[in-house]
Amino acid sequence: MPHIDLGNELPGIVSLFAYRPRTAGPLGELAEILLRGPSSLSRGERELIAARVSERNGCRFCSDSHAAFAAAQLEGGGGLVDQVRADPATAPVTPKLRALLHLADAVQESGSPVTGERIEAAREVGATDTEIHDTVLIAAAFCMYNRYVDALGTLTPQDPAAYAEMAGFITAHGYTAAAPV
Amino acid sequence: MPHIDLGNELPGIVSLFAYRPRTAGPLGELAEILLRGPSSLSRGERELIAARVSERNGCRFCSDSHAAFAAAQLEGGGGLVDQVRADPATAPVTPKLRALLHLADAVQESGSPVTGERIEAAREVGATDTEIHDTVLIAAAFCMYNRYVDALGTLTPQDPAAYAEMAGFITAHGYTAAAPV
Repeated sequence: MPHIDLGNELPGIVSLFAYRPRTAGPLGELAEILLRGPSSLSRGERELIAARVSERNGCRFCSDSHAAFAAAQLEGGGGLVDQVRADPATAPVTPKLRALLHLADAVQESGSPVTGERIEAAREVGATDTEIHDTVLIAAAFCMYNRYVDALGTLTPQDPAAYAEMAGFITAHGYTAAAPV
Repeated sequence: MPHIDLGNELPGIVSLFAYRPRTAGPLGELAEILLRGPSSLSRGERELIAARVSERNGCRFCSDSHAAFAAAQLEGGGGLVDQVRADPATAPVTPKLRALLHLADAVQESGSPVTGERIEAAREVGATDTEIHDTVLIAAAFCMYNRYVDALGTLTPQDPAAYAEMAGFITAHGYTAAAPV
């Protein structure tokens, strides 16, 4: 049960977007650019980073929803996504994506654990400056979205079908459609 | 020295806004709405919350800049701001603002430490649902901004005059002017 009266029974961040449309605008736009905008990282790869950070932050709604969005857009499907959520070090991903996931893990802890060495390790396996920047900002942004969703006690659907349905909507229409202004 | 080549020598998040204007748009707009948009909390009070969260996240650039923005907009000036940054429990603020600062402290840790009791404590000293919502989102957003600024190793000016100058600009022109799209 949400900690404040949101005036709707929508799940997770969707209920907050409906409650406060003014902030939903930039929050939805940021997610759209980071996770679906032009990038040399695929949409599925970026959703994996979001799902992994959300898992580490303990945000059930965000982890399960972005895992579903990743699974819908990656060849490895849900099996691969669950391996990445559990441990990027052993998951069957490219060395570059593994390095970016390690970088995201450091950002999830705080800004200061991100050393020049960690950045250099990603660069050595082919990550560009833009990919490093975007990975840092995706990880940082989910430290915001996760806290926003959990600190206000929003509803977390228990039925996996709810996440599959959201995946259908987001992959077809994007995040700004979920956050109308 | 920044971890990636930002192509400019601007300080903190300003250098990231210039490097990646596409994400600067929603990031600047979110800060403008949260810290300067219509609200029953004053601009100075909201900047205090931002400065306190940034202090706890160890982000020197964000803590010092939002402290300067708060000092410029509060009667108590820099002395009050430093007391709040150090310990909201003993700082001379209203019971409502103290409860909101405690709430922000919990959000800074993670989403899950935010219990119904913590929310209720803020409500009992007069905080509205909207004020609770906005405090949670300000605290969550600074968990993003702080990580973004520190994880990429942006430049942190040492001269207090640099922060005073930024305070003059932000209080006059706002955050969207600092993040042109």
